[in-house]
Amino acid sequence: MSSEKNPLSPRIDKNGNLDILIAAAECFMEQGYHAASIDDVARRLGSTKGRIYHYYRSKTELFFDVHREGMRRNFEAVTPVMKGPEPAAQRLSAMFRRHALSMMENLALEAVVVQGVEMHRFSATTPEQRRTLAELMTVRNDFESLFKRVAYEGVEDGTIRTSDVSVAVKVALGAINWLSIWYRPRPSETRDDREILADKIVESIMQGLNAPG
Amino acid sequence: MSSEKNPLSPRIDKNGNLDILIAAAECFMEQGYHAASIDDVARRLGSTKGRIYHYYRSKTELFFDVHREGMRRNFEAVTPVMKGPEPAAQRLSAMFRRHALSMMENLALEAVVVQGVEMHRFSATTPEQRRTLAELMTVRNDFESLFKRVAYEGVEDGTIRTSDVSVAVKVALGAINWLSIWYRPRPSETRDDREILADKIVESIMQGLNAPG
Repeated sequence: MSSEKNPLSPRIDKNGNLDILIAAAECFMEQGYHAASIDDVARRLGSTKGRIYHYYRSKTELFFDVHREGMRRNFEAVTPVMKGPEPAAQRLSAMFRRHALSMMENLALEAVVVQGVEMHRFSATTPEQRRTLAELMTVRNDFESLFKRVAYEGVEDGTIRTSDVSVAVKVALGAINWLSIWYRPRPSETRDDREILADKIVESIMQGLNAPG
Repeated sequence: MSSEKNPLSPRIDKNGNLDILIAAAECFMEQGYHAASIDDVARRLGSTKGRIYHYYRSKTELFFDVHREGMRRNFEAVTPVMKGPEPAAQRLSAMFRRHALSMMENLALEAVVVQGVEMHRFSATTPEQRRTLAELMTVRNDFESLFKRVAYEGVEDGTIRTSDVSVAVKVALGAINWLSIWYRPRPSETRDDREILADKIVESIMQGLNAPG
């Protein structure tokens, strides 16, 4: 992935801990952050708690790294299509489409990203936790900025129309992020099914609901 | 409000417990459900815990009633503009606009509604709690159905264009519900400011981002 716009920690996967992050994300998604324990994560992994504590001192640290990996995949999905000779509306559509697919295909990780945003407001965190959350929020704002930048390019090249780029991008990202609340894959679902859903979401965002004329 | 479409418990406010619900919603929003205690709610109210326990046996019951009141206000906001002689696209826009304003003006209650949806998936609840959550999810689906009904009317009267009404409505409601994550009123904010923001959100949903032509 492009490292230019991504200030995230590079330690993910170097230590072979990606399966820990996925198992933890699934536990956090299904049980909620507060109810899930390191024991639950170990059980899901079929490993010992010791293996998890080798990488993470606490559940909070684990949660933050899941959040980082979810955001890393968000950046990885959209940055390759940001730039190019196409009109900005076309590039922005491709970014939304890839973000929607990434939400569906990394559902547990991305549900934790949404939980992380919620947690940002909670007071029951230590100063160190608050610093980490602030860092994660900065990354989140950087992600939103990628979309705003291309939307502004679209206002300039005449392919995007909006009275407020910032609100329009928040509306579009909210629509996509809301997938973490309602989307659950059907057992027989294929990549094609997900692409059809992503196309419908992008259609709604780009065309709106009003019939033309 | 129209009672026809609203299966919610009518006990709210009859017992003078609305201020308890508002205080609880603010605590849940700021601290999160798990970190907030009945003590925190009592402190915010300037009352005793006994007053809260007079109405609610547990924090969970209180949380559920906050959720009910948030959903009641959602219905109350949109049902008056659902029907009428106007084209369906115009009525649907009015429903989105009122829902967005209701999200902003009942921010704490509506943030709890969003937390409630998240909680629905958590396993650490009793059978009774699961029944209540299932009931709340039904109410939520009923709310979504109001929008779908008017969107279908718009496909019929030719004022709405979409390849999938269900996805389009989820996209629009997600965009609005996402306000609970990012919207915080500025100290000097007026009703006019909120109406301008609501108009921009509705513009994005109804017109989309693509420039015409």
